[in-house]
Amino acid sequence: MLVVLTGGTGGAKLIHGLSLEISPEELCIVCNTGDDFVLHGLHISPDLDTIAYTLGGVADTEKGWGIQGDTFAALEWLEKYGGESWFKLGDRDLATHITRSRLLREGLTLAQVTERIGKSLGVKAALLPMSNDPVETKIQTPAGEISFQEYFVKRRWSVEVSGVSYAGAQASLPAPGVLDALRDARGVIVCPSNPVTSIGPILAVPGIREALRETKAAVLAVSPIIGGRPVSGPADRLMAADGMEISSFGVAKAYADFVDLFALAPEDKNWRTRIEALGVKTVEKTIRMNSLNDKRNLARELLALL
Amino acid sequence: MLVVLTGGTGGAKLIHGLSLEISPEELCIVCNTGDDFVLHGLHISPDLDTIAYTLGGVADTEKGWGIQGDTFAALEWLEKYGGESWFKLGDRDLATHITRSRLLREGLTLAQVTERIGKSLGVKAALLPMSNDPVETKIQTPAGEISFQEYFVKRRWSVEVSGVSYAGAQASLPAPGVLDALRDARGVIVCPSNPVTSIGPILAVPGIREALRETKAAVLAVSPIIGGRPVSGPADRLMAADGMEISSFGVAKAYADFVDLFALAPEDKNWRTRIEALGVKTVEKTIRMNSLNDKRNLARELLALL
Repeated sequence: MLVVLTGGTGGAKLIHGLSLEISPEELCIVCNTGDDFVLHGLHISPDLDTIAYTLGGVADTEKGWGIQGDTFAALEWLEKYGGESWFKLGDRDLATHITRSRLLREGLTLAQVTERIGKSLGVKAALLPMSNDPVETKIQTPAGEISFQEYFVKRRWSVEVSGVSYAGAQASLPAPGVLDALRDARGVIVCPSNPVTSIGPILAVPGIREALRETKAAVLAVSPIIGGRPVSGPADRLMAADGMEISSFGVAKAYADFVDLFALAPEDKNWRTRIEALGVKTVEKTIRMNSLNDKRNLARELLALL
Repeated sequence: MLVVLTGGTGGAKLIHGLSLEISPEELCIVCNTGDDFVLHGLHISPDLDTIAYTLGGVADTEKGWGIQGDTFAALEWLEKYGGESWFKLGDRDLATHITRSRLLREGLTLAQVTERIGKSLGVKAALLPMSNDPVETKIQTPAGEISFQEYFVKRRWSVEVSGVSYAGAQASLPAPGVLDALRDARGVIVCPSNPVTSIGPILAVPGIREALRETKAAVLAVSPIIGGRPVSGPADRLMAADGMEISSFGVAKAYADFVDLFALAPEDKNWRTRIEALGVKTVEKTIRMNSLNDKRNLARELLALL
């Protein structure tokens, strides 16, 4: 199995490419759940959903979130009832959250629920939450601590960030299958996801970082930073708040203890020497993925490296 | 205040008429919640919703349930996930159930939730659940006991009924305001709703029947049976299972201890003598309501009687 660590947006692009280049049954995806939150009384797992929708062929790849062709009738009425509407829940998407919430309340684990939803969507890859336990990415701001979704969606990353923490991580366990998959992997890819709020929570689950260090498989990471700027999202601000250098080097350094090979953009080739000095091999690749072709090409080239 | 006891369909028609004939602020509606049930993990109150949608001017009066112009995108996906789809939940309607479920889980009572939802829909009448406590109408069938919704919607009243019970009724209390409203009413109308599964559960809440007997206001009931057949729904089968005669007389007899005046269709005038012998006055009215005009006319005539 090829094991892939991912968040939502950037990771979904690469996973889309990978799923077209190898048999999806060979793919095991370990997904961030630090962004999970409760809204309208429903348990929402944005990254798991983005990946499941992508692998199920129903993702809205234009918008980068949600289900293609989804409508927003329920949301309009939730707002009418005084509910929050800053998180754009489509009607079809809502069915996912209603189903997940019901099954969790019935006693299923998040991994079991994820498997059930994935099956219904025709997902053939193994899609695992990083943990069945709640781990919440918290953003520290001058006005107090807020959830990741409040920072990212409601405030549109407009507030100053002084730090990031993963509440509940210490007490969490990796979801069943995660450590085994890492140990037995034929290769591991760390997606070009936000290192602080997408990959960071996964690494904060006790045992996962150790398994990445110890696996015999090659571990390959793709930089989410090109030319000193994130491909998308607020990775730069969050990295700065976390004391990281905002560059490919900063990302590579954060992963240096377990990554063997680091793929960066040609624009970042001047970082190669510094990264290699960390004991991490580097490779230049066109890592910006705009088209489906870009996604497949990058996937194919990464697979060739493993 | 004019106090109205009601279920969904038939009652909604008369309440629609009443709300156009008197100031809605003078209307206090005590609504059946024996049909409430949980589906997809959401608390659904079909009768409260039908009345709230009617008074809010958003009811689908053609279909007799749900919200006009509603769409069914979420339901299609709930079904894809293996969820039950026999209860047709529209996307906008779903927002009501999501909101109710969230607020109940946050600790609000059903009455408080109903008030909040009503306000959002612009409902000016006082709309009260019969009780804040769970009272479940159970239908006894040869294959065992089923919920009212399963009998009514899922099985489309196709199974044999041997009895009806109101689980939880003994321990339930009338919702705050119900008994006061009945005591201080300037008149009470019992809607042409199913006497077994719409009005029956209301009367099963300890204290309500006594308050109806004791109120100084005139209590007027409208027959849901015309010519030995229910205007809509399975009232006949449920009345038979409950040991009632399937006729205007059967309904009047069930209400005889608290009803002063019983309105029946001209087709049923031959029952008048038997009903009057119960000590209940009768009046002939066009009680079938097909058009908005019918609803307003009946409402106006009933108001004139009080």
